[in-house]
Amino acid sequence: MEAVKATAEKICRFEVQGARNTAIAAVKTLQMLAQQSEAKNKIEFLTNLSQAQQLLFNTRETEPLMRNALHYIIDQVQQSSIQNVHELCTLLVVGADKFLSELDASREHTAEIGAKHIQNGITIFTHCHSSTATRMLTKAKQDGKNFRVICTETRPAFQGRITAREMIENGIETTFIVDSAAQTFIPKADLVIVGADAITHEGNVVNKIGTSGLAILAYEARKPFYVVSELLKFDPITSYNALEGIEQRNPAEVWKESPKELDVRNPAFDVTPSRYIHGLICEKGIIPLKNMPEIMQQFYPWLYKQSSPNLHVNQKTP
Amino acid sequence: MEAVKATAEKICRFEVQGARNTAIAAVKTLQMLAQQSEAKNKIEFLTNLSQAQQLLFNTRETEPLMRNALHYIIDQVQQSSIQNVHELCTLLVVGADKFLSELDASREHTAEIGAKHIQNGITIFTHCHSSTATRMLTKAKQDGKNFRVICTETRPAFQGRITAREMIENGIETTFIVDSAAQTFIPKADLVIVGADAITHEGNVVNKIGTSGLAILAYEARKPFYVVSELLKFDPITSYNALEGIEQRNPAEVWKESPKELDVRNPAFDVTPSRYIHGLICEKGIIPLKNMPEIMQQFYPWLYKQSSPNLHVNQKTP
Amino acid sequence: MEAVKATAEKICRFEVQGARNTAIAAVKTLQMLAQQSEAKNKIEFLTNLSQAQQLLFNTRETEPLMRNALHYIIDQVQQSSIQNVHELCTLLVVGADKFLSELDASREHTAEIGAKHIQNGITIFTHCHSSTATRMLTKAKQDGKNFRVICTETRPAFQGRITAREMIENGIETTFIVDSAAQTFIPKADLVIVGADAITHEGNVVNKIGTSGLAILAYEARKPFYVVSELLKFDPITSYNALEGIEQRNPAEVWKESPKELDVRNPAFDVTPSRYIHGLICEKGIIPLKNMPEIMQQFYPWLYKQSSPNLHVNQKTP
Amino acid sequence: MEAVKATAEKICRFEVQGARNTAIAAVKTLQMLAQQSEAKNKIEFLTNLSQAQQLLFNTRETEPLMRNALHYIIDQVQQSSIQNVHELCTLLVVGADKFLSELDASREHTAEIGAKHIQNGITIFTHCHSSTATRMLTKAKQDGKNFRVICTETRPAFQGRITAREMIENGIETTFIVDSAAQTFIPKADLVIVGADAITHEGNVVNKIGTSGLAILAYEARKPFYVVSELLKFDPITSYNALEGIEQRNPAEVWKESPKELDVRNPAFDVTPSRYIHGLICEKGIIPLKNMPEIMQQFYPWLYKQSSPNLHVNQKTP
Amino acid sequence: MEAVKATAEKICRFEVQGARNTAIAAVKTLQMLAQQSEAKNKIEFLTNLSQAQQLLFNTRETEPLMRNALHYIIDQVQQSSIQNVHELCTLLVVGADKFLSELDASREHTAEIGAKHIQNGITIFTHCHSSTATRMLTKAKQDGKNFRVICTETRPAFQGRITAREMIENGIETTFIVDSAAQTFIPKADLVIVGADAITHEGNVVNKIGTSGLAILAYEARKPFYVVSELLKFDPITSYNALEGIEQRNPAEVWKESPKELDVRNPAFDVTPSRYIHGLICEKGIIPLKNMPEIMQQFYPWLYKQSSPNLHVNQKTP
Amino acid sequence: MEAVKATAEKICRFEVQGARNTAIAAVKTLQMLAQQSEAKNKIEFLTNLSQAQQLLFNTRETEPLMRNALHYIIDQVQQSSIQNVHELCTLLVVGADKFLSELDASREHTAEIGAKHIQNGITIFTHCHSSTATRMLTKAKQDGKNFRVICTETRPAFQGRITAREMIENGIETTFIVDSAAQTFIPKADLVIVGADAITHEGNVVNKIGTSGLAILAYEARKPFYVVSELLKFDPITSYNALEGIEQRNPAEVWKESPKELDVRNPAFDVTPSRYIHGLICEKGIIPLKNMPEIMQQFYPWLYKQSSPNLHVNQKTP
Repeated sequence: MEAVKATAEKICRFEVQGARNTAIAAVKTLQMLAQQSEAKNKIEFLTNLSQAQQLLFNTRETEPLMRNALHYIIDQVQQSSIQNVHELCTLLVVGADKFLSELDASREHTAEIGAKHIQNGITIFTHCHSSTATRMLTKAKQDGKNFRVICTETRPAFQGRITAREMIENGIETTFIVDSAAQTFIPKADLVIVGADAITHEGNVVNKIGTSGLAILAYEARKPFYVVSELLKFDPITSYNALEGIEQRNPAEVWKESPKELDVRNPAFDVTPSRYIHGLICEKGIIPLKNMPEIMQQFYPWLYKQSSPNLHVNQKTP
Repeated sequence: MEAVKATAEKICRFEVQGARNTAIAAVKTLQMLAQQSEAKNKIEFLTNLSQAQQLLFNTRETEPLMRNALHYIIDQVQQSSIQNVHELCTLLVVGADKFLSELDASREHTAEIGAKHIQNGITIFTHCHSSTATRMLTKAKQDGKNFRVICTETRPAFQGRITAREMIENGIETTFIVDSAAQTFIPKADLVIVGADAITHEGNVVNKIGTSGLAILAYEARKPFYVVSELLKFDPITSYNALEGIEQRNPAEVWKESPKELDVRNPAFDVTPSRYIHGLICEKGIIPLKNMPEIMQQFYPWLYKQSSPNLHVNQKTP
Repeated sequence: MEAVKATAEKICRFEVQGARNTAIAAVKTLQMLAQQSEAKNKIEFLTNLSQAQQLLFNTRETEPLMRNALHYIIDQVQQSSIQNVHELCTLLVVGADKFLSELDASREHTAEIGAKHIQNGITIFTHCHSSTATRMLTKAKQDGKNFRVICTETRPAFQGRITAREMIENGIETTFIVDSAAQTFIPKADLVIVGADAITHEGNVVNKIGTSGLAILAYEARKPFYVVSELLKFDPITSYNALEGIEQRNPAEVWKESPKELDVRNPAFDVTPSRYIHGLICEKGIIPLKNMPEIMQQFYPWLYKQSSPNLHVNQKTP
Repeated sequence: MEAVKATAEKICRFEVQGARNTAIAAVKTLQMLAQQSEAKNKIEFLTNLSQAQQLLFNTRETEPLMRNALHYIIDQVQQSSIQNVHELCTLLVVGADKFLSELDASREHTAEIGAKHIQNGITIFTHCHSSTATRMLTKAKQDGKNFRVICTETRPAFQGRITAREMIENGIETTFIVDSAAQTFIPKADLVIVGADAITHEGNVVNKIGTSGLAILAYEARKPFYVVSELLKFDPITSYNALEGIEQRNPAEVWKESPKELDVRNPAFDVTPSRYIHGLICEKGIIPLKNMPEIMQQFYPWLYKQSSPNLHVNQKTP
Repeated sequence: MEAVKATAEKICRFEVQGARNTAIAAVKTLQMLAQQSEAKNKIEFLTNLSQAQQLLFNTRETEPLMRNALHYIIDQVQQSSIQNVHELCTLLVVGADKFLSELDASREHTAEIGAKHIQNGITIFTHCHSSTATRMLTKAKQDGKNFRVICTETRPAFQGRITAREMIENGIETTFIVDSAAQTFIPKADLVIVGADAITHEGNVVNKIGTSGLAILAYEARKPFYVVSELLKFDPITSYNALEGIEQRNPAEVWKESPKELDVRNPAFDVTPSRYIHGLICEKGIIPLKNMPEIMQQFYPWLYKQSSPNLHVNQKTP
Repeated sequence: MEAVKATAEKICRFEVQGARNTAIAAVKTLQMLAQQSEAKNKIEFLTNLSQAQQLLFNTRETEPLMRNALHYIIDQVQQSSIQNVHELCTLLVVGADKFLSELDASREHTAEIGAKHIQNGITIFTHCHSSTATRMLTKAKQDGKNFRVICTETRPAFQGRITAREMIENGIETTFIVDSAAQTFIPKADLVIVGADAITHEGNVVNKIGTSGLAILAYEARKPFYVVSELLKFDPITSYNALEGIEQRNPAEVWKESPKELDVRNPAFDVTPSRYIHGLICEKGIIPLKNMPEIMQQFYPWLYKQSSPNLHVNQKTP
């Protein structure tokens, strides 16, 4: 359980970042917990898993991919008829490995589908850093497409610099701007793509602060705006909407020595309504966001079997 | 002429910043030049003035206030029937003083008109730092109005921090955010106000990068968007439009150690079309931007007498 | 059959009002008819049911819930292999009871889902009286949420007064306005909710006159507009659109002593196009209106087995 | 002064209604005061006038026509070089007569210009009762135009019934609806016309509650929306905007026996932003609302000479 | 194989026109090929079919109906366990007949559904010639509906004249205009209907040049815009979007003796984004375009089994 | 008078085309009439002029430039104190020459102002043939600007071919398309420019059929749309609006051998509302259309002195 706590703390302190990395870290911690388990029976084993799950869930407000991953893996153990702890461990470890390799396959598939959508000679505007989006872009480059990328610096944590470096290293011509230059550059782009941290039942997309403004500017400039994401960023339980609490990070990230009377705000994400989004590029194709519930029920029916009442212990009442 | 060159260089190196400060510095330099003039006759004196004007015009692409100021002052000398150099100097010095005090009066008048427009209990969103806009806000506070301000940090040069400090020092409750959080906060505001660097014949407003995006977000959120500026930011000759060259500043301001293949862009301004702007708060009231030419002809008819063909020597062909 | 006629007349004369109450009255009348049936064989029994159905269908143009209810109940009898009249009666009575209790459950479920969507401190705008919408609001209040309601008087029959009384009795702070004050108050609300009388294949919503105007004002003010309704308000056969006949009620409801040359019009409903509606809050969650056909086929497949050609005898040709 | 008080009370109690009637009543009261004046000298006479003006100004928040009328008349007396009280009385009475006859001429002129704009066979939607708008419609009818009118009942005071009677009496085919049926009927109309209670510097129009919603619905339906009004409804001093206090009338007009916990609101007017208005039909032609200040300065320059600081004594701070 | 080549050439030279006719010609050619086959075994037979398919696919860029038809028919043969060539021929001929008669049934069904949607007294705007759309209109006329049609001439090939003649012959009152008069006449229509050449995964519609402009004008005039088409115009593989190559026809169709320096362009189709389209009138009802993938999977699951990598040999890289 | 009749007939038969050419022909005819006059006195001379004016006015419904021209010239004669017929003739001939040379100067000035607005490397979309617009384009080319033009063929009379030839002859790269390809090409352009046949008091522009649709497409694509025209196309008396009669030309121009039951319509012009137009490029600069009345009063005050009641004899009542 110490390893779990250590991972949970790393996630809390943002030493692990990004929805994918957080989910992978949580899944691996669970594997380790299983491998080192000294539980005497199934009940004890499940209790340990449940405690670990709780610790990991508490680390972040907005991480459906991690929550979906843990659910999938623990549910398999719970529902199995096996009673032997050792065999249950093996079941968990194998299930977790399978989940991770499918997650990789989803990203690869998403990247392939998206890469086909990129035409020679176009310019693509992007924001922040999303490993799925950048994978799609490098795939397109490897497929021989020539295109340009414009990326924002993405204050306060400058994740846009990671994107810019990745693009440059892959030989993609890239322009780099401050966030507020978006309205100057979007009219010169052909397409906007962003990643996602969470996708809601109504098809709204929770992503890095600034995304919703870009979606409006893209709409106003009549440029298609796509979200690139694995479907498992969908959150079957919580419905995040514009009124709901969004993770607030440390104000010092924005201004270290701000005057003390100043109310510095640092929301990590914002919510882009589905009506500004052309489509979701995912492992199953390009999909209208409005159809998320049907699509999830078709491809990930196990998501709808989750019913533990205590899933979201650290959800603040708004 | 050395002093003129020194001032010109300061302006070039952005040691003098802001449309007002630049105009004031240029006018004072001209006064100094006149006071130290050793010209033997009117022709020589005018030649000196013309050279100084040229040097100062070359410092910046987008400074109509400075250009209007120099024109006003030099035109008075040119058109005067006086031939005596000493008297001409006096004429210039007095004319310049008058111009500067009228400029101050314009700002004060603008601030008073704008302050009346602020209701108790509202929230005002602003961007960058405009001395006229902050004067309007502090005036309203002094008039006993209670209101909140939300201001952006304004990358790359963080002028929003100047605004935030000014607000706090005047006892105005202020929230401070990164630029790309605008779409999260504008729907919570009642009003957006920004300054202006230049106003065009068509009523478009050239202002700090990010302004045009805010105007679109405000329009989308159905929040009134006002520009606060003295009328002399109007540029009678150049018509800046979206296709035209905007001053590009040093990329290092955006990212000091950027990869060398990366195309870092740092445009200083953008252009907000008049149709997104509710009105111009200026020394003559609150005015629809579409009516700029009529209003300028009514209140500043001398602007239309400028006809020197060589006015915009450093205008790049686009 | 007399009891059926009596009920039909009450519905015609608007002594029974509202889509739910009308459906419940019709179902109960059918139960009574079955219980008192003296039919000698199945054919005679079915003929009686069919006559009763026809009488009830003729009472109103826009009542899909009643039509769906009668279909469901009569279809069960028709398709049963039972021939004994007494047993058929029992089948009908039990089927009808089940239908009514499921209808209650649907409303309760809808109210629960909707109540979760209400945040503390928000203001909700509503129109007319919908028992499902008011149930959702009182449920939210019981769950401890604090919020305000603004409701319109809803001319000509002032159903808004029923809503206002219900809100006040449940301790909800409520503001009451004339219908045409909507544009003054919607910008102060966070959310608009209304009920539904019918939902069409294309996802348009037929509801109390005034609803479509509110949807446009809400859209213009960028406020989410939700319809709260059980799915069985969906009409599988008729596709109501803006061109089609809407029930016209007595002009005297609008103006008792109007000049006789005056053409007083009193349409009971209007049609709100799905593109102005954020979502349908129903017993299956919050659903995009555009997906109605898929959703109905998934949850109420029996609706699509209706094929009696004489279903809509009183549909006027437009 | 008693007569003045009596008139003021009548206006307060809404026994005199409508911007025109209120202005006429105020002007006539001033004439009567002058005719019965026992002032011993000009100063005393002016003091009396000033007191009367104050009493009348205090009666209503939103009556620029009355305020403009009193100003015009009293200013003439103040600025005259005449000292003899009797002659001053005559001056006032004659000036007031002239003002009233010009006001009549303005309405007539406005009606003529508007009537020319009405095409045979069209349908015109209107709201509330405006004597200028109905004059325009009857003028068009007298000119031989055939057209239909749709008018709303205009809750809470049902002024639409006055309009409907006037139309019927003039032989104009008229349809009468509840206010919230507007969205059903506006798409069937070709044109929307309304009157005005006040017009602001920014070109926004203050008119009967419901007007701003109609303007949005007309815009959405792509139907031209015109305001019909004499230019003197322009208010040179106050700038009414959406944030400002609008006259709140007696809640009992809305619901006599409302539950006492219910917050019944009865705002008399709302504010229609100029961008939803095609044009102002006035005595000088059809004019874009955005150009109001220029137009008023051209045709009514005396309005801009008003500078008495105590003009708006009963303006509440918002 | 000569017959196949002959048909392919006819299609290339536009002697066969329209998506339906092209598909029918291709299917019949395949039948003939089968009937005349001298193949010695299944492998040889399939090889011949594959060559024929390739020849026919190469004729046009934008013909999903033909591609879907050939796939359906050839797949049946491939997947059959029959080895006897003669029996395979029969299988193909019968399968092709079945496909063609189902295609006819789809058109008839689509026409019936659409005809019910036409109200008495309305005016319908249409563009180009679509046999499904004109079938729907003549069906409505035969059902006794009275309505008017406005049709464009449809440059450069004047297919609108075919539509106009068909309407007149069926006794439908018809107005005929040049293409650019659309904005004058759409506001007078109640409905716009057009056919389709292809429908993409995202629900965009590829149709005769001019269609996308009409969709925008209809949207701006608030007139519903419907596409009338069999579902098999859906293209499961290619996703046509605005960036993609559209068939360019002979410039001489536009201007025979154009100056030789002039760049005359003659794109055959354009792409209408789904957001401008109210619905697809097809053999399964009226369907939101955004739901195409779900609907195709439900009704035409075999479309998703196509996986031959060499299907689109003549797709130009853009 | 015979020469006048001959000219009038030529205009009627469209042997003289275009607003400019028509105005020039009418003015020259008047000059000839004056030179050949055998009138015995001023009254007779004026009567002749009035008859000629009437004949010329009757030729076309939509020719404000011709009407303004004749008014200007005849008014000068009428208002002159000269009585001698010979001298009056001279006055007229000289006045007419002056008018024509000022008209030329206006076009040249307009072209110069517009040419400055064209940036290197842009693409300009245009429609029909306007000599002022093509003058502006060739001026820009002569000034060394490189740009592309896209022009429509402009059915039914193919005036776009004249434009295309002119562009090619001046060395401007030009693309030529059918009218309905506009929506495919406007998003690739940077700017749309068109001419004008008439400009109304409200700032709407009457121009070749198709213009209003292009304005909407340009607006939707966020491309600036400019009208290029001399101010004298403004019509001071008639206010053309969407409801008013537009000149209907010969249906045979559209389809020579159309079926006789077919209602072929051939409106020559349509009306573009000012809100879709960025600005008017004219001899006085780039002007917002909404300000037309103020601008005309400032620069052409004589237009407002026209008061002859019989000016528009051939205006059909709508």
